[in-house]
Amino acid sequence: MEKIKVLVVGYGNVGRGVLLSLANQADMEVVGIASRSVERVKKSVKDIPVVDINKPEEFLALKPDVAILCGGSKNDLPQQGPEMVKYLNTVDSFDNHSCIPQYHAAMDAAAKAAKHVAVISTGWDPGIFSLERTLANAFLPGARSYGFYGCSPAGGLSMGHSDALRTIKGVADARQFTHAVPEAIEKVRNGENPEFAAGDMHTRECFVVLEPGADAAAIEAEIKAMPGYFAPYKTTVNFVSQEELNSKYTGFPHDGCVVAASTTGKGNQAAVEFRCTWGSNPEATANVLVAHARAAVRMNKAGDCGAKTILDIPPKMLSPLSYEELLKKFM
Amino acid sequence: MEKIKVLVVGYGNVGRGVLLSLANQADMEVVGIASRSVERVKKSVKDIPVVDINKPEEFLALKPDVAILCGGSKNDLPQQGPEMVKYLNTVDSFDNHSCIPQYHAAMDAAAKAAKHVAVISTGWDPGIFSLERTLANAFLPGARSYGFYGCSPAGGLSMGHSDALRTIKGVADARQFTHAVPEAIEKVRNGENPEFAAGDMHTRECFVVLEPGADAAAIEAEIKAMPGYFAPYKTTVNFVSQEELNSKYTGFPHDGCVVAASTTGKGNQAAVEFRCTWGSNPEATANVLVAHARAAVRMNKAGDCGAKTILDIPPKMLSPLSYEELLKKFM
Repeated sequence: MEKIKVLVVGYGNVGRGVLLSLANQADMEVVGIASRSVERVKKSVKDIPVVDINKPEEFLALKPDVAILCGGSKNDLPQQGPEMVKYLNTVDSFDNHSCIPQYHAAMDAAAKAAKHVAVISTGWDPGIFSLERTLANAFLPGARSYGFYGCSPAGGLSMGHSDALRTIKGVADARQFTHAVPEAIEKVRNGENPEFAAGDMHTRECFVVLEPGADAAAIEAEIKAMPGYFAPYKTTVNFVSQEELNSKYTGFPHDGCVVAASTTGKGNQAAVEFRCTWGSNPEATANVLVAHARAAVRMNKAGDCGAKTILDIPPKMLSPLSYEELLKKFM
Repeated sequence: MEKIKVLVVGYGNVGRGVLLSLANQADMEVVGIASRSVERVKKSVKDIPVVDINKPEEFLALKPDVAILCGGSKNDLPQQGPEMVKYLNTVDSFDNHSCIPQYHAAMDAAAKAAKHVAVISTGWDPGIFSLERTLANAFLPGARSYGFYGCSPAGGLSMGHSDALRTIKGVADARQFTHAVPEAIEKVRNGENPEFAAGDMHTRECFVVLEPGADAAAIEAEIKAMPGYFAPYKTTVNFVSQEELNSKYTGFPHDGCVVAASTTGKGNQAAVEFRCTWGSNPEATANVLVAHARAAVRMNKAGDCGAKTILDIPPKMLSPLSYEELLKKFM
C-alpha cells in the first residue's frame, strides 16, 4: 500500500500535534513542513525537510498528496487557504464560525479551478460538533442543539480569553478556564429547549499573575468589565504566582458537549449528547485534521473537487480500515 | 418542492413510529402502508392506503420513491429486503450485527441489479452507534469503542430478554430492564481500554408476573440459569402483579452510550462519548430510518446505487436543511 504523503503547513501547537498524530498512522507519512520561518523551525526539527511556504517549487518537490494547514483563522488561513489549494488538496481548521460561508465560497472557487479537494473548518468545533448538531437536527426534528464547553471539573482553557487577559496593563501572565453551568445542561437534557443568554451557559475563571506593584483590585474590576470577553459572564479572578500558574494550570486541556433534546412520535422524550474531553486541545484538533487529510486524498482520487466540510464526507473515508473491516467491526 | 413519497412496509411498533415521524417532516409524505395483513391494518388505519406487500403492482401504483422496511431482522428482512429493492429504494434496520456483512452482500447485488439504493442496518445501534464507533476509531487511533445500554436510572427495556422470560412455564408476563455498570463506564472513560466479560458491563433486572400457583423460587432459579440470556449476568428477579407491571414498567424506554478513550500526541488523555436516551425505542429507530430514507432518495437521484450503510452517507444528505443553511446554522 502506498502511503498518503502529507505536507504540514505551520509549526505551532497544532502543527506539532499533526506531526505526532501522523507518526501513529500506518497509511500516512509526513514528507515535509512548510513554514514562513524556515530557519527557526529547522532548529527544532532535524529529521523532516523544512521548506519555504512561499516557494511552491520547494514544497511540490516533496510530492505531497495533501497539505494540512495549521495556521490561524484570523491572519493565516484567509490568504493561505486559497493560495495553497492551487497546488494541493488541503485540510484546515478555519474556526471563525460566522465567516465559514464566505471562506467556503473562496475555497470552493479556488479548489474547483485547480481540481483539488479542500476540506475546511474541521477539528472538534467546528468539525465533530458540526456533524453532531446536523445529526441531532436530522434525527430529532424540533430539537435545538446546544454547545457547552468546560464541562469537566477542571474546565477548558480558552486561548482567546487568556490572550485578552494578557493585554491588560499590570498583568504579567494569565490563563482563563471556561466552565459550563451544570444546571443549564440539565435544562437542555430535559427537553426544555431554553433561550439562554451567554452568561447562563458558562462561567469564566481567571488565573492572573500580577506585575510587581500592580493594583489587584483595579485589575480585577477591569477584567470583569471587559465587553464580550468577561462582562456577560459570572467571572472569578484568582491572583497566583508565576510558579503556581506554571505548575497547576499548564497545558491545553479542553472539553465540551453538544446536547439536544426533543420528543419522538407520540411525545416520548428523546435526547442525544456528544461529549469529548481532551488533555490537549491542539493535539485533538490535529488528530481530526489528519483523518480528514485521508478523506481529502481519497475523495480527490475518486474524481471529486471543491470545498468540503465534515458534512460532505462519507464517514468511511475518514477511517484507516477497509469497508469490509468497518462492516464487521463497527456496524 | 416535490415531497419525497414513502411506502411504509409493516405496521408494528417501528412502522407506527415511522408514520408519526413522517408527519413531522415538511419534505416527505407517506403514500401507503404495505402489509401481509391488509385487512387487519385497515381496521386501525383509515386515512392511508393499505396494500398487499406481495402485490408489487399495488404498491408501485402509489408511486413511492422509497420503501421503509419495518420488519424484523430474523424472519422478515432477509427475504423482504432483496425482494423489495428490486422495485424501490429501501431503508431498513437489520440489526443482527454478526450477519451484516452477508446481508450487505445480498442487498448490494439486488440493489445494483435494479439500480436502486438500499440503506441497510440503520437506527441507533446499528446506525448512529456504528458511526460513532467509526469516528472514535478514526480520530483516536488505539481507542477501543465500548457500547453500554441502560445507562439511565430506569435502564433500558430489552424486548429479546422480555420474550425469553415469557417462554418460562409459570410466567404469565414479564419485562426485562438492562442496566449498565457505572464502574465499567468509568474504566473506559479513564482510558484503561479494559477487557470485559459480558457480565462486567451490564446487569439484568426482571419484573415477572406469575401464573396462579407457580413456584416463585424455582422460576427465579430457572431465570438466573438461562444460558446466554441471564447466566452470564448479575440478575435480579422481582415478582409483581400484572397491574404493577402495566402501570410502572410500560412503554419501550431505552438508552445507551458509546465510549472510547485513548491518548493523543504526547500521551495526553482523550475521550469521546455519545449518549442517547429514548422514551420510545421504536420511535427513535423510526426517526433515524426516516432521515435515511431522505438520503436514499437523494443518493439514487444523484446516480448512485447499491447497498449503503450510515458509513457511506455524506451527513448533509440526512438533513432537511439546504447546504447553505447547514453551513450557516450548524458548522
